Amino acid sequence: MNSDASEPALIGVDWGTSSLRAFLISKDGQILDGISSPQGIMQVPGKNYETVLDRLIGHWLAQTDLPVLASGMITSRNGWIETTYARMPLDAGGLASALVPHDIASGTRIHFVTGASIEHAGRPDVMRGEETQIIGASALALSDGTFVMPGTHSKWVQVSNGQIMDFSTYMTGEIFAALKEHTILGTLMEDDEFNSEAFKAGVTVAMEDKADLLHNLFHVRTLPLMGKIPKTAAADYMSGLLIGTEVAAATDNASTIGTITLVGRSDLSDRYEIALQTANIESRRAPDDIVAKGHFKIACAAGLIG
Amino acid sequence: MNSDASEPALIGVDWGTSSLRAFLISKDGQILDGISSPQGIMQVPGKNYETVLDRLIGHWLAQTDLPVLASGMITSRNGWIETTYARMPLDAGGLASALVPHDIASGTRIHFVTGASIEHAGRPDVMRGEETQIIGASALALSDGTFVMPGTHSKWVQVSNGQIMDFSTYMTGEIFAALKEHTILGTLMEDDEFNSEAFKAGVTVAMEDKADLLHNLFHVRTLPLMGKIPKTAAADYMSGLLIGTEVAAATDNASTIGTITLVGRSDLSDRYEIALQTANIESRRAPDDIVAKGHFKIACAAGLIG
Repeated sequence: MNSDASEPALIGVDWGTSSLRAFLISKDGQILDGISSPQGIMQVPGKNYETVLDRLIGHWLAQTDLPVLASGMITSRNGWIETTYARMPLDAGGLASALVPHDIASGTRIHFVTGASIEHAGRPDVMRGEETQIIGASALALSDGTFVMPGTHSKWVQVSNGQIMDFSTYMTGEIFAALKEHTILGTLMEDDEFNSEAFKAGVTVAMEDKADLLHNLFHVRTLPLMGKIPKTAAADYMSGLLIGTEVAAATDNASTIGTITLVGRSDLSDRYEIALQTANIESRRAPDDIVAKGHFKIACAAGLIG
Repeated sequence: MNSDASEPALIGVDWGTSSLRAFLISKDGQILDGISSPQGIMQVPGKNYETVLDRLIGHWLAQTDLPVLASGMITSRNGWIETTYARMPLDAGGLASALVPHDIASGTRIHFVTGASIEHAGRPDVMRGEETQIIGASALALSDGTFVMPGTHSKWVQVSNGQIMDFSTYMTGEIFAALKEHTILGTLMEDDEFNSEAFKAGVTVAMEDKADLLHNLFHVRTLPLMGKIPKTAAADYMSGLLIGTEVAAATDNASTIGTITLVGRSDLSDRYEIALQTANIESRRAPDDIVAKGHFKIACAAGLIG
């Protein structure tokens, strides 16, 4: 039965800054089991990554010796093993040939997927983890066009025939949090359910006035101060201003942008979907567990699947 | 000798969020004496403003009974007396007729100068204190054109014949502080002397790419991460990106902007001067004690100068 396509063949680990997900993957690339943990790389005291990994996936490894692929911020300067960045264009074969093996005490070999970098006019951009998700998307017949990956640092990625050609990072998510928590804009905000009208109003202003973010943000204070919007709408209006500014900038020089593939099923992705609709841009959704498909494709390209 | 133009006739108080300045002003509008204090409205425990004022200017009031004019955030919701906003266009006479008198225990009457507001497309903008500075500038033959007032929330003010016609606020200074202190961008920064080359490089990128701030800010991390700029240059590069974005947005629709009057002699004003030079916009400087001239002009218009 060792040729059974449904038997375990790979463990994929997506280890980011604030969380970790691991997948038990079959010979034919299906997810057999999955776990998630809040132990992102910044939440591992003493950088004792091996102990964390053993506790989380040790039961999978105990049954049989499986290759482990790990992607994400775990390969950054603040992670476990710092790897160099691969350059564009980049596909599963390119990432497979750049894998960095590391044997841990238990004898298991971890293959680290390196991140990717590109330069525009001498200014570097980097990703770690998203490249593996994009490679996974190409296993789902989502192999072309623009991918948008919302998050703390959102990524806009250009893909052609399953190859990553170009990408740009937007600091939108982290800037939203800093403005809400650490400027006067947060002081008039009151939490409530998502207010889609306030969000859309922010998006619309940002798209009309796309270079004027530093001014438009001041209205996040004056609108509730003057009673023009409720305090419960202020955070969503600001979110709309920021995501709208991102969408306007990222699509500015792209008259033929086509359908955008939004990665993820989070509340944040829902906001991007609304912003793209407001900009008259079509979008579709890719599941956020495409990272496991990416681990599988890279492992296949590296000859690690028996 | 009571008609001597050089005898005290007015006390002007500029009471902001983080500091207070007071001026003893003569009958002919000259500054006879001045004090400054870090006791801005947020640094007065129990809002005991009267005690603070008495300690700081009591010795001026002890000699003779002088009218006191107070401007700035002291009239905001978080201050002493909340006043409504005056509307545009606005000159010394308009501010004089909107003064809000308040008698304190010692018998002294304080005349509060109200702030100003305007709306663009239903979105309000507000100032408190800057209107008095602008009125003061018109006493210095600086009565027309665009005024830029750098600060936590910088103001761009349109003035015509000594009347304030329009203005816009940019949150540049507060956003710089939030990004430096509370995002990943601060983690690679090292303090050093002002690096004008790094600042200009940020300004130039912002002006070429003026809608792309949320992306360009990511380079504040990647440039030092990749060794392309020293860590000591990162903060000034970010400052250049932000101030450059502000200048680009504020001057975008103004083909005939003319010479800009920069208010203040601070390090921050020096940065704006460099940014304006980079944008090929001429500028001149107004001293930041023009606020005392504003107090004087408003007091004259209100008939308070004997």
